[in-house]
Amino acid sequence: MIEAIETTTLYIALIHHPVINKNREIIGSAVTNLDIHDIARTSRTYGVARYFIVSPYEDQHRLVGELLDHWLKGHGARYNPARKKALERVQLEWSLDNVVDSLEKETGRRPLIITTSAIHQDETIAFSALRKKLSCEEPVLLLFGTAHGLAPEIMQKSDYSLPPISGGTSYNHLSVRSAAAIIVDRLLGS
Amino acid sequence: MIEAIETTTLYIALIHHPVINKNREIIGSAVTNLDIHDIARTSRTYGVARYFIVSPYEDQHRLVGELLDHWLKGHGARYNPARKKALERVQLEWSLDNVVDSLEKETGRRPLIITTSAIHQDETIAFSALRKKLSCEEPVLLLFGTAHGLAPEIMQKSDYSLPPISGGTSYNHLSVRSAAAIIVDRLLGS
Repeated sequence: MIEAIETTTLYIALIHHPVINKNREIIGSAVTNLDIHDIARTSRTYGVARYFIVSPYEDQHRLVGELLDHWLKGHGARYNPARKKALERVQLEWSLDNVVDSLEKETGRRPLIITTSAIHQDETIAFSALRKKLSCEEPVLLLFGTAHGLAPEIMQKSDYSLPPISGGTSYNHLSVRSAAAIIVDRLLGS
Repeated sequence: MIEAIETTTLYIALIHHPVINKNREIIGSAVTNLDIHDIARTSRTYGVARYFIVSPYEDQHRLVGELLDHWLKGHGARYNPARKKALERVQLEWSLDNVVDSLEKETGRRPLIITTSAIHQDETIAFSALRKKLSCEEPVLLLFGTAHGLAPEIMQKSDYSLPPISGGTSYNHLSVRSAAAIIVDRLLGS
């Protein structure tokens, strides 16, 4: 029997600023409760090492902090220990730079920064190539955007982009929760 | 250039009764707004032909009906035409039997009924085998359970189950939204 690997070298960050709106203007978005839960559950299922919620807003930190307290220390922890296990991997951060600094301190290496987008970007890396890097235990930080996607300045800070998910149709408007699930399955699923 | 196929022979149903709670008792669950949106967006992206919301409760039908009206005919349709395109594939039904009858009338054939579960079932079909059936345009109805999963009587009405999604860890508590995204990608993704 193959022993389960509970933690890989994949890290996820969900960016709430800077992102773009439907007119491609730079905005900051509010945190969505189910983005935290769904992506934390996906993360824990696939052994994603940490799931960073990135927001520069103090009120959002307060809100997410309260929510995490409920599930990690409050009634939620007793009511649903499985949910606690998933949310233990969540870490709140103020900016992408903070996330990268924190990972560099922890792992001693700068992670490979990979963006995701519904639109084709210039420097792409194939799913299979990134899967191989993860199987060799290279630290990889995968960025997801809220609202209408990551701002150009985040794209510029990344090493590569994954190609957009194609479902074979002309339509491509997945929720970030669904996109994260599909991408993590493609990278770590068996 | 390969032309996009906008509709496949895959159908999805999200069952709200009969499902089980954490004590394995038979219950009916309430419809969750984001289950409708997220799975409709996944469905439209991958060319799922129809996404059935199955509930025996009149108040739930009224609620989902109002929500669909907003996005298909009301302000939502003008504000977000992409969302309208996804929600056009949603169909409300009272029971699994109604769904099967409706598909039999429409396609002239009983669809292959496939259940999904986080627990291994007796009669399983491999993802690759089901993928092949879809590529040959066999009608397939894929069932997802809300709450803690599909009730045994639904399992008994199905032809096969898909194996549980493995993320390589000992943890398996995906949201139904994430599980649906991963399974549809495995069956129809390119």
